[in-house]
Amino acid sequence: MTDRAVTVAEAGEAAVLEVLSGAPVQAGDDPVGNGDDAAVLGPAWATVVTTDMLVEGTHFRRDLTSWRDLGRRAVAQNVSDVLAMGAECTRILVALAVPGRTTMREISDLADGIHSEAARSGAVVVGGDLTSADFVVVGVTAIGTLPHGAAPVRIDGAAPGDRVGLTGLPGRSAAGLALLLAGRPDGPLARAYRVPHTPVGTGTAAREAGASSLTDVSDGLLRDLSGLTRASGVAADLDRAALPVDPELSAAAESLGAADVDALVLDWMLDGGEDHGLLGTFPPGCAVPDEFTIIGTIRAGEPGEVMIDGTARTPGGWDSARGAN
Amino acid sequence: MTDRAVTVAEAGEAAVLEVLSGAPVQAGDDPVGNGDDAAVLGPAWATVVTTDMLVEGTHFRRDLTSWRDLGRRAVAQNVSDVLAMGAECTRILVALAVPGRTTMREISDLADGIHSEAARSGAVVVGGDLTSADFVVVGVTAIGTLPHGAAPVRIDGAAPGDRVGLTGLPGRSAAGLALLLAGRPDGPLARAYRVPHTPVGTGTAAREAGASSLTDVSDGLLRDLSGLTRASGVAADLDRAALPVDPELSAAAESLGAADVDALVLDWMLDGGEDHGLLGTFPPGCAVPDEFTIIGTIRAGEPGEVMIDGTARTPGGWDSARGAN
Repeated sequence: MTDRAVTVAEAGEAAVLEVLSGAPVQAGDDPVGNGDDAAVLGPAWATVVTTDMLVEGTHFRRDLTSWRDLGRRAVAQNVSDVLAMGAECTRILVALAVPGRTTMREISDLADGIHSEAARSGAVVVGGDLTSADFVVVGVTAIGTLPHGAAPVRIDGAAPGDRVGLTGLPGRSAAGLALLLAGRPDGPLARAYRVPHTPVGTGTAAREAGASSLTDVSDGLLRDLSGLTRASGVAADLDRAALPVDPELSAAAESLGAADVDALVLDWMLDGGEDHGLLGTFPPGCAVPDEFTIIGTIRAGEPGEVMIDGTARTPGGWDSARGAN
Repeated sequence: MTDRAVTVAEAGEAAVLEVLSGAPVQAGDDPVGNGDDAAVLGPAWATVVTTDMLVEGTHFRRDLTSWRDLGRRAVAQNVSDVLAMGAECTRILVALAVPGRTTMREISDLADGIHSEAARSGAVVVGGDLTSADFVVVGVTAIGTLPHGAAPVRIDGAAPGDRVGLTGLPGRSAAGLALLLAGRPDGPLARAYRVPHTPVGTGTAAREAGASSLTDVSDGLLRDLSGLTRASGVAADLDRAALPVDPELSAAAESLGAADVDALVLDWMLDGGEDHGLLGTFPPGCAVPDEFTIIGTIRAGEPGEVMIDGTARTPGGWDSARGAN
């Protein structure tokens, strides 16, 4: 066991990868787990693959995010993309860049976050890669599987008459970030920002229920719904009163001295990113899973247009090239 | 078509991802190609997955590497890990971080490099992700497949009596970097540094020939052979006279004014990284594919020990946590 006070530069690549990857593991009947040039996964009907990275300064600040939370968040945001295909996540690969002065204790905390979030999602870590850099980047590849004969739920299948459903309570992550930036003490919203709660199982439930389209809310509810409806060639009407509201949002807006508490809460709910709930559409007649709240309907119209109580609203939220809108 | 002079921040995420991902594409019978939350791959006997990133300042300098070469190199080094399992690469996913001031022309050049190197390897790009950052990071996930019934070639299967085989000419990338850093004009060695030549098809050839182990030379011939023999619990003897020598290496060492030309050439060949040739072991009696040069033998001994003409030599090469040794 490497002394946890030594740095990555002192410990060397092999020791870091050992901590990062954890014990040698093979998922189910995978021929090769971690520790080789690549992982080799066993027979599969359909394999879901997505990759995404968290970059210091863009996605997180080291003073606001612990190493453990960073690991959990990097996994969670990728798992969420796998769930959004109607699948479950089964394996995780990690590519990590850290400064040489990073301690093995910090690597161990990061690995703990990665492994615990993977386990929460039902996945194992089957590979890791290490790079030294002046800043921290955590790249994650999440892999999922679909049962034999199952079709993935695409983003472009919404049709007029479908109901729009959403898991979880939107805006919690954005409100949590606002509280953190204002220096408020830790609380449930701050924790929602630091580690999104991926709705494990709800992607499968939506697929089994017959959802016509599915995506995850990473850039903001409006922006992601607009993306889904644009891909599907339809428009959507949202019902403000149907949106599930976390009462903590109003308290947070008040404590931050918002001039218009309701407007700030609505901004958080419609434009706040990184909640990573699932957003799906359900054709008439199909039984919507309990985890989804119906918040609107799909109609024919300008592709990508989203109205709230009959009024068009341009998505704010996050554009990964432009930043906050 | 977006004006190529506009920046990433002006063009926005959707436009960048469109250029990065290229035309919508689905490999073979994949249910979902790019443009959704995740790619979904069709039925497979065995799926090979690896991920790795190139970080500005650590792996490349923008003044020495064009955007096109950066894209090619990021793909090539991951493809090489897929080949090293005895497989062929079929799909590529890209996670990209760039400053907002990056132009669409630069993104287009990067995408061109990514797509052309993927095509060279027989792969298509099935997904992309974009992040804004103060520096450039190119994360690639490479996916490969094995034909029905085929077993991957692991890193830990070498046994005493096996012959050690290597594709290509080692040391070219290291010599090319030395020439570039000395300000020498472009040439074949510099090009070998900028874009490694992955030996497409040789992983499959090694597997079909009955190779007992296989890895790729990314950190240096000695270091990677030591890793392979350590994983296999064996030692190796290299034959200096059997090493395939590119005559350009001597010319390069001379032009750099090396005090001992032969010693510098040997250092490049044994410790130079990023050649991305394949290194494998072949049991007695099996027909070694033409692409492999036999450079030594496996014997019982201290796991990981490598001798050259009977003398032990400690691997130099690259440690991703420590840097150059």
